[in-house]
Amino acid sequence: MVLLFPEDFIAPNRVRLVGRRLAHAREVHRATLGDSLRVGRLNGKMGRGVVTRLDGEALELDLLLDQEPPPKLSLTLILALPRPKVLNRALAAATSLGVHRIVLINAWKVEKSYWKSPRLSDENLLQQRVLGLEQAKDTILPELSLARLFRTFVEDDLPRLMKDSLPLLAHPGGPELCPRGISGPVTLAIGPEGGWVDAELKSFQGLGFRPVDLGPRILRVETALAALVGRIC
Amino acid sequence: MVLLFPEDFIAPNRVRLVGRRLAHAREVHRATLGDSLRVGRLNGKMGRGVVTRLDGEALELDLLLDQEPPPKLSLTLILALPRPKVLNRALAAATSLGVHRIVLINAWKVEKSYWKSPRLSDENLLQQRVLGLEQAKDTILPELSLARLFRTFVEDDLPRLMKDSLPLLAHPGGPELCPRGISGPVTLAIGPEGGWVDAELKSFQGLGFRPVDLGPRILRVETALAALVGRIC
Repeated sequence: MVLLFPEDFIAPNRVRLVGRRLAHAREVHRATLGDSLRVGRLNGKMGRGVVTRLDGEALELDLLLDQEPPPKLSLTLILALPRPKVLNRALAAATSLGVHRIVLINAWKVEKSYWKSPRLSDENLLQQRVLGLEQAKDTILPELSLARLFRTFVEDDLPRLMKDSLPLLAHPGGPELCPRGISGPVTLAIGPEGGWVDAELKSFQGLGFRPVDLGPRILRVETALAALVGRIC
Repeated sequence: MVLLFPEDFIAPNRVRLVGRRLAHAREVHRATLGDSLRVGRLNGKMGRGVVTRLDGEALELDLLLDQEPPPKLSLTLILALPRPKVLNRALAAATSLGVHRIVLINAWKVEKSYWKSPRLSDENLLQQRVLGLEQAKDTILPELSLARLFRTFVEDDLPRLMKDSLPLLAHPGGPELCPRGISGPVTLAIGPEGGWVDAELKSFQGLGFRPVDLGPRILRVETALAALVGRIC
């Protein structure tokens, strides 16, 4: 699916695309005049776009947007900032799975250098979520925020964010297997490689988080994330 | 965890490691003499290895192997051969999740060139599973086979492989949500990007496979794999 942004619109039902999406339409879809592509308007409806122009400069589409995007999961993800290499995949995966809000949080075992990665630019954080939306055929951008101070976030913001949800803390070696098929809202916290330290565990538990795991295996963050979401939702 | 192979043993309870594992111990673990590392013997027990030598040439460990590896999932994965870039991640993920047997199968929408990828070398197929085992702290290598001919495999081999298991076919847009928490053995077939074609769907259904999905979202193969395993097992 091709995701359309406000600045792409040159008329109420027409867009002009350049750059990545133009190249993708030519090289991957091998689109030609008259072809109908799946499209969706950022935070709006989905449908089809008929190619009315395609050359080295631009792709133009006439749109019919008549479908609602799929519902989001009632899942807030609190994710210890992964190493830069993993961050992009984790963000795209969480977005494609339908997580509706993502908070990237500091933790004791998050290396300080990760917070200086160029991958934390607004542009990249948007781009990875857009790729996740296009993959999943969804248009609703998940909210994303950065919590560079663990304690401030957990004490000042988390109580409000997690209100009326089931709070679960992924903690390998935890006392309880992760529950399945939760029908209501869930707040899921996933730690760094190496896990949460005791003080962090206690902070979460003080707010009512239950430490849960998926059994004795230690999984990479993006694998654990998908397995937990598949199990919980 | 450091996985130990038969050729590493220089005495019943002593190994000498070179290459990747030596470099990893020096550069990532920053091990020193007397340190105790988590180790496991391929297809055997797990435990600790005390560093008795560490220099530019070799790492030697004195072993105490007294723990059983975690149980495997009773899950056979039939996976349409992913594009080479994705293959490594999918293999390591499936292994870390505890899948006990993996079959890489051809399908209409698998590009022929994928079967010529150097990543299908025995060496790489072993290496990716080893990385998955080390990640998950497991020692039991999942069986892996290649089914280059779809029909031959489905008609001649699959009936025996799937015997006494619940056969599920991941099929986005399928009529049924994937069931949760199956207690017995499962055979799970996951198609290529673009999905199974009708003839393939019919072949699987003829053997009793139920087409299931995870909802309206289209996921990347490694995300779908983890979400399905998290849900099923």
